[in-house]
Amino acid sequence: VSSEFEFIDLLRRLPLANGARGLLDDAATLTTGGETLVLTSDTLVEAVHYRADDSPETIGWKLAAVNLSDLAAKGARPVGCLMNYALSGDPAWDSAFLSGLRAALDQYGMPLLGGDTVRMPDGASRSYTLTAIGAVMAGGRVPDRAGAQPGDILWLGGPVGDAGAGLALLNRGEQHPEALISTYLTPQPQLALGQVLAPIAHAMMDVSDGLLIDARRMARASDVALVIEQVPLSMALAAHAGRNIEARLAAATAGDDYVLLAALAPEAVPPLGCIAIGYVEDGEGVRLRLDGEDVSLPPRLGWEHGSGRSGG
Amino acid sequence: VSSEFEFIDLLRRLPLANGARGLLDDAATLTTGGETLVLTSDTLVEAVHYRADDSPETIGWKLAAVNLSDLAAKGARPVGCLMNYALSGDPAWDSAFLSGLRAALDQYGMPLLGGDTVRMPDGASRSYTLTAIGAVMAGGRVPDRAGAQPGDILWLGGPVGDAGAGLALLNRGEQHPEALISTYLTPQPQLALGQVLAPIAHAMMDVSDGLLIDARRMARASDVALVIEQVPLSMALAAHAGRNIEARLAAATAGDDYVLLAALAPEAVPPLGCIAIGYVEDGEGVRLRLDGEDVSLPPRLGWEHGSGRSGG
Repeated sequence: VSSEFEFIDLLRRLPLANGARGLLDDAATLTTGGETLVLTSDTLVEAVHYRADDSPETIGWKLAAVNLSDLAAKGARPVGCLMNYALSGDPAWDSAFLSGLRAALDQYGMPLLGGDTVRMPDGASRSYTLTAIGAVMAGGRVPDRAGAQPGDILWLGGPVGDAGAGLALLNRGEQHPEALISTYLTPQPQLALGQVLAPIAHAMMDVSDGLLIDARRMARASDVALVIEQVPLSMALAAHAGRNIEARLAAATAGDDYVLLAALAPEAVPPLGCIAIGYVEDGEGVRLRLDGEDVSLPPRLGWEHGSGRSGG
Repeated sequence: VSSEFEFIDLLRRLPLANGARGLLDDAATLTTGGETLVLTSDTLVEAVHYRADDSPETIGWKLAAVNLSDLAAKGARPVGCLMNYALSGDPAWDSAFLSGLRAALDQYGMPLLGGDTVRMPDGASRSYTLTAIGAVMAGGRVPDRAGAQPGDILWLGGPVGDAGAGLALLNRGEQHPEALISTYLTPQPQLALGQVLAPIAHAMMDVSDGLLIDARRMARASDVALVIEQVPLSMALAAHAGRNIEARLAAATAGDDYVLLAALAPEAVPPLGCIAIGYVEDGEGVRLRLDGEDVSLPPRLGWEHGSGRSGG
């Protein structure tokens, strides 16, 4: 058990708000004046959550996008955000960061409410925090990770693995295929899809740390087993890496996908573009069956460092 | 003009929410379902906002307290908070940080809603962010820095300078007088006072960067001049540093006080403990008159690094 899990256990012993969901979910809720707000906050750390030489535009975009993805997982529409920014010491870099941030704020309609701007000591690693606030319609459901029921079908909002392959390419100094790299650098949160799925989803979350590790989190929170029978790959990824079991396991553990994972009743019909990848049964954990055969889970299911994203 | 001011100017060109107050205030407002929320977020950076060898308990306390002080300045009661925590690598240190944080959350009734826990690269400077959410009573006023009117009396929620003297003592390796050091390490946000003053204050803010620099911010936002005729010192500070002009100028530029500064109509009566320190007149900037004589402003009015706290 890492000190991170121990720390989050300690956090749970602090006085928790009603909407904190035990710090186990992507976001918290706050009901005020009859309306329900959704609150989430993610920190991006240089060399941990992005590459130190990623362009500032893409880091600014990503900071907004990863938080918007948490709002998407709750079916919330963006209301506003606060940003905590560490000045880089290079005004041109800071300005480029803001233009990437702005592109995401404009695209998804999330205005800035406030935040904080700080100077870091010389040479310090940068980190950036954004706290996003969303709202759900009066009486609207805010699905969490718990609630998946035996018999439910598992749906994914799109293919996985592109971003992980893009990251691996960048780490090898390669710039192609561009489609994979751009999925890593500028993820597209599925806000519209989240608003459609939230009223009908028994459980929902975004896949940020890897399909297998995030599916295991949903299984644990729901006290069920998730059976995954398909790992959907984009055409770009299949062309680049093939479709064999190894390629699909890599895609299912890569992370940074920011697609939605939802458990729906078998009769529910999600929008076009959603992909049925498996089902829910009694039991615990994640079971992988590919091409009709049981497949052993790989030793590493995804990014553990992101587990702290839970709870808002 | 520092790159920080240029950066905040760029921030103002992003799409701003209605309640962002032009990023010029201590906090933002969000009206939802007929209720008004107050939102603020402050980041503490190691070796910038606290000393690297301050105890983890006091850093945890301070992270909550500086944000609670922003809620106090808006007359809001705490509703919840999100914390973004950078693991130290030392579980005992992290646990001590949480016990200090918990003490503040318990004392001021602010439960945890969520946040994020991250690992930093080895040896990286730590920083911690807390985003606090408060609420005001339906129809309640949320004073900002603008609104001070010629003829208003300036009131301070308590003496200034203790924390700055405490910081100077710690930087010299001294541990006494304890009263000064504890004001620096564990500031006490004036939440109850803020709730009493908010309905009657023409303008209000917390003094965090130094009385003179914060007064100048209120003067600018209100488009008036603030005349300060008294710099109130605690008995502990007067005993330690005396009451001459130099001691009072040091106290008025020291920062980390976290007392409220409010401009009230002359007929308004604030609670006991508030100290009238001057008045508002036509003009601009801050004018200092001590012992009946005009006093030149010192070249440094307070901490510029904290200016980024504006806007939430």
